[in-house]
Amino acid sequence: MPKVAYSEEERQRIREALVVEGLELVKKQGIQHTTVEQIYQRVGISRTFFYSFFPTKEDLIVEMLYLQQPQILAHAKKKMDDPNLSWREGVRQFLYDCCYGERNGIVVLTIPEQQRLVHRLSKESYQVFREKQAKLFGELLECFGIRANRKCIELFINLSLTAMVIRRAIPEVLPMFVPEAADATVEFQINAIVDCLAELKGRPAD
Amino acid sequence: MPKVAYSEEERQRIREALVVEGLELVKKQGIQHTTVEQIYQRVGISRTFFYSFFPTKEDLIVEMLYLQQPQILAHAKKKMDDPNLSWREGVRQFLYDCCYGERNGIVVLTIPEQQRLVHRLSKESYQVFREKQAKLFGELLECFGIRANRKCIELFINLSLTAMVIRRAIPEVLPMFVPEAADATVEFQINAIVDCLAELKGRPAD
Repeated sequence: MPKVAYSEEERQRIREALVVEGLELVKKQGIQHTTVEQIYQRVGISRTFFYSFFPTKEDLIVEMLYLQQPQILAHAKKKMDDPNLSWREGVRQFLYDCCYGERNGIVVLTIPEQQRLVHRLSKESYQVFREKQAKLFGELLECFGIRANRKCIELFINLSLTAMVIRRAIPEVLPMFVPEAADATVEFQINAIVDCLAELKGRPAD
Repeated sequence: MPKVAYSEEERQRIREALVVEGLELVKKQGIQHTTVEQIYQRVGISRTFFYSFFPTKEDLIVEMLYLQQPQILAHAKKKMDDPNLSWREGVRQFLYDCCYGERNGIVVLTIPEQQRLVHRLSKESYQVFREKQAKLFGELLECFGIRANRKCIELFINLSLTAMVIRRAIPEVLPMFVPEAADATVEFQINAIVDCLAELKGRPAD
């Protein structure tokens, strides 16, 4: 516990700083290579004080993901507003940027990271996670000009996550997959998603 | 070690029986619920004698997968020869049967099972595994009337494995995926593969 007493407002400010600085570090270095120590030192607080905000690294990571959501949406909007890109090419580039997130400052969790994170969440936090996830992907579809129902959003989540996790899961997590075809597999997945979205765009949500 | 001396021929016969009986048991019960003990008892040999053939369960499983390969190919041929099925519906049903293998007597490894298996293989055995995998998927494409090059085969392997592992990986291994959309995700993957194969069928391999 810190020696000095912090007001609720100060605590809130420090908490936000930890999430902001954490996300910046993780974008540059990846989750695996970012330690809790690096983050609290950057904010200038002690280890003990850090843990009064976030009991584990995963509790912080999930907040970083929530902070990233409007940034991801802004990235999609930028692609959609780019006059040099067709609708199709804009959506394709956005999905590609997410799949190769580490090159584009977008944090995408690997399968083991997803497991650690979700298994840490309480039932209530898991519910919040699901709602925020559905909200983000629903807004992305809206940004692409698609008014989708819950079922469509859920399928879009799974298809996007498939494309995003697979490449980085080969060969360690998915050792039976052919490593030489990893990029082609992602490319195929992205094109299949774009084809599906193009079709959805053409018809009203049921 | 067994008390009696077995001829090389007898050893070969027992080895084959272990693979055959093992595959039958695993088809019925799944890999997880099948023990090495159940298999060697069915063949009527001792634990020690069993391990003189297969140092681990995984060494036996990989042989079971090789034994299953012509069976899978025969299943595909049956779909292709069925006069009541269009080409598209035949391919679709075959992929569907593989994705829901546990209902159709087809052994499909989960992600953790794939990891355990491949990590057990020696460098030489891994090479053999890759060759047999490419041979099976190449023959499947031929069975679908597609003459494909290595690159196409490797992509087909990854796309098929994607469809096959995903459903059973939700929610444990892939906890961020939406469980309610698991079946729709597999359906989408299968249709995307069939679309791709239909296009490949129409043009010569390069």
